[in-house]
Amino acid sequence: MNKRIRASVRAMTGYVPGEQPRIPDIVKLNTNENPYPPSPAVAAALAGFDAALLRLYPDPVCSELRQELAKLHGCKPENILVVNGSDEALRLVAECFVENDGSIGYFDPSYSLYPVLAAMRDVETRPVDIWLDLTWRMPPAYEASLFYLTNPNAPTGLLFDKEKVRDFCRDFAGVVLIDEAYADFARANCLDLALELPNVLICRTLSKSYSLAGLRLGYLVGAEDLIAALNKLRDSYNIDRLAQAAALAAVRDQAWMLANVEKIRQTRTRLTHALRELGWQVYDSETNFVWARPDQPAGEVFAALRERAIIVRYWNSPHLRDFIRITVGTGEQIDKLLRVLRKEI
Amino acid sequence: MNKRIRASVRAMTGYVPGEQPRIPDIVKLNTNENPYPPSPAVAAALAGFDAALLRLYPDPVCSELRQELAKLHGCKPENILVVNGSDEALRLVAECFVENDGSIGYFDPSYSLYPVLAAMRDVETRPVDIWLDLTWRMPPAYEASLFYLTNPNAPTGLLFDKEKVRDFCRDFAGVVLIDEAYADFARANCLDLALELPNVLICRTLSKSYSLAGLRLGYLVGAEDLIAALNKLRDSYNIDRLAQAAALAAVRDQAWMLANVEKIRQTRTRLTHALRELGWQVYDSETNFVWARPDQPAGEVFAALRERAIIVRYWNSPHLRDFIRITVGTGEQIDKLLRVLRKEI
Repeated sequence: MNKRIRASVRAMTGYVPGEQPRIPDIVKLNTNENPYPPSPAVAAALAGFDAALLRLYPDPVCSELRQELAKLHGCKPENILVVNGSDEALRLVAECFVENDGSIGYFDPSYSLYPVLAAMRDVETRPVDIWLDLTWRMPPAYEASLFYLTNPNAPTGLLFDKEKVRDFCRDFAGVVLIDEAYADFARANCLDLALELPNVLICRTLSKSYSLAGLRLGYLVGAEDLIAALNKLRDSYNIDRLAQAAALAAVRDQAWMLANVEKIRQTRTRLTHALRELGWQVYDSETNFVWARPDQPAGEVFAALRERAIIVRYWNSPHLRDFIRITVGTGEQIDKLLRVLRKEI
Repeated sequence: MNKRIRASVRAMTGYVPGEQPRIPDIVKLNTNENPYPPSPAVAAALAGFDAALLRLYPDPVCSELRQELAKLHGCKPENILVVNGSDEALRLVAECFVENDGSIGYFDPSYSLYPVLAAMRDVETRPVDIWLDLTWRMPPAYEASLFYLTNPNAPTGLLFDKEKVRDFCRDFAGVVLIDEAYADFARANCLDLALELPNVLICRTLSKSYSLAGLRLGYLVGAEDLIAALNKLRDSYNIDRLAQAAALAAVRDQAWMLANVEKIRQTRTRLTHALRELGWQVYDSETNFVWARPDQPAGEVFAALRERAIIVRYWNSPHLRDFIRITVGTGEQIDKLLRVLRKEI
């Protein structure tokens, strides 16, 4: 034990990302990646990229990309902060809006990174248990410096009612970070709340709907003063030249992203129905994954699928061990999954 | 003023990076970029990169790149942490090794980001004034949780004596981060101290010697327990797929990097002598920039050069306002600079 390391860091268990196994012909349905490639405009942007330019620092404020995102969302570039994956945004808000004696709230269950971020800041957590029925539930007179609100939620895939979100944000004294990583797959989103209310930030990512998990590109939308404060804290050149060029190309090709989202939604519907026919309890997903309780022990289903090189996500923890989370892959991948589950192959 | 923003963040002035002006035919000698392009292997790696792979998350631990760096430095991959530009490393050590009641030390002058990082952590700073002669000077019984040691130093370009660095690190109770951004241009470095002492981390970057400022790629070398602690704090997927591929190609081509470094050293020598002939006071640089006191007011020299589209770095602050910092560009760029200074053109 090295006393030079902060006590809170010594005590921390870091966040454990989903595995990235190197198995040939794997059907990888464990980390909610998009099964379709990014826009051809991304490949074209990279092919046309002059590597000699890498000798120069990137634009520290991502001017072109922020202009494009502002146009997309009907706001000003000053309402946008571009980050190196939404992980950076989630960390920055904890650094920016929580005093050392402050607190961080989030639903349980939701994204398992939030308590890790609170541990990094060494501040109190105020999780709100929603295990009863996984729907909206705030305790009376609930307070925190910052609330992480995943909407649609993970790993449940459920969308919270927008009016309840709005009412909560209006009454909440702290900052609400609405993590909309999966919003493009949902029937509604809360982006307008970030432009309407002084304490709401929306976090988006290109990882899921834009098929760019490998690029690390996310952004925040919100009030100018919140964005300006976060700008002071981020690393000065947080987004490299290649990522800026690739992201710009991807955001400009909305049609490609929307077409992939539509394919995934259709496959999601088919997967949901098929699993229910097998006797599984399946939640109504508004994301690119499906959360379900199999008709057999979930750990065994996970292991059996893994033996067939189909990797889904499973957490062997008290509340979660009865469920598995399946990323919506291509039609062919889901066909294979279903055939294996039906013992047809 | 928004009370939701941490008081320390409201009070902060963010770090101001050197300007990235968009002037045609500019001679850009202000942010210590390498005037030569990165290895052709980088362009080849990007040309051969399959954009479809961007749909998948990157390797979260940069396995291949860490192996390559470990081979280069004669250590284990567990001694290496790859970061999104060395800015990330400098921030992470402040988060990892400084308790809320701890303190951060650094020399004054050195990299102007350090007090900003201390402000972000809202901890005490313990700067050590070395303005008297810019050489090594530690007060008796000096203590801090973390000391940022820029070696060679910036903006002076001077190299501290290695035995003094070693003695200081041995006696110091906290962690020493030796920022070796410019080490490839120097006649000596302290990398072995990071593998020998339990409290020393070396920070390197591909921005300068490898001509990859636009890629955002740095790394730390140090004891396994320090690296493991930092690993808990960094964003899970901090380095994207493109940067990992490009950096691997660059690091494997040591010959290209070393050849560019040699050219820059020769130009540096020529620039130093020429400026001294003009009556300037020029420090012996061990970096890819030259720090000098012109024979006329520095602010006027800066402005006059700027009018000729030659951009150097100038800080209008009490200690610094008599100096300018000139990045060592190509031979042609330095020729033009010198001709303008000599009023030949």
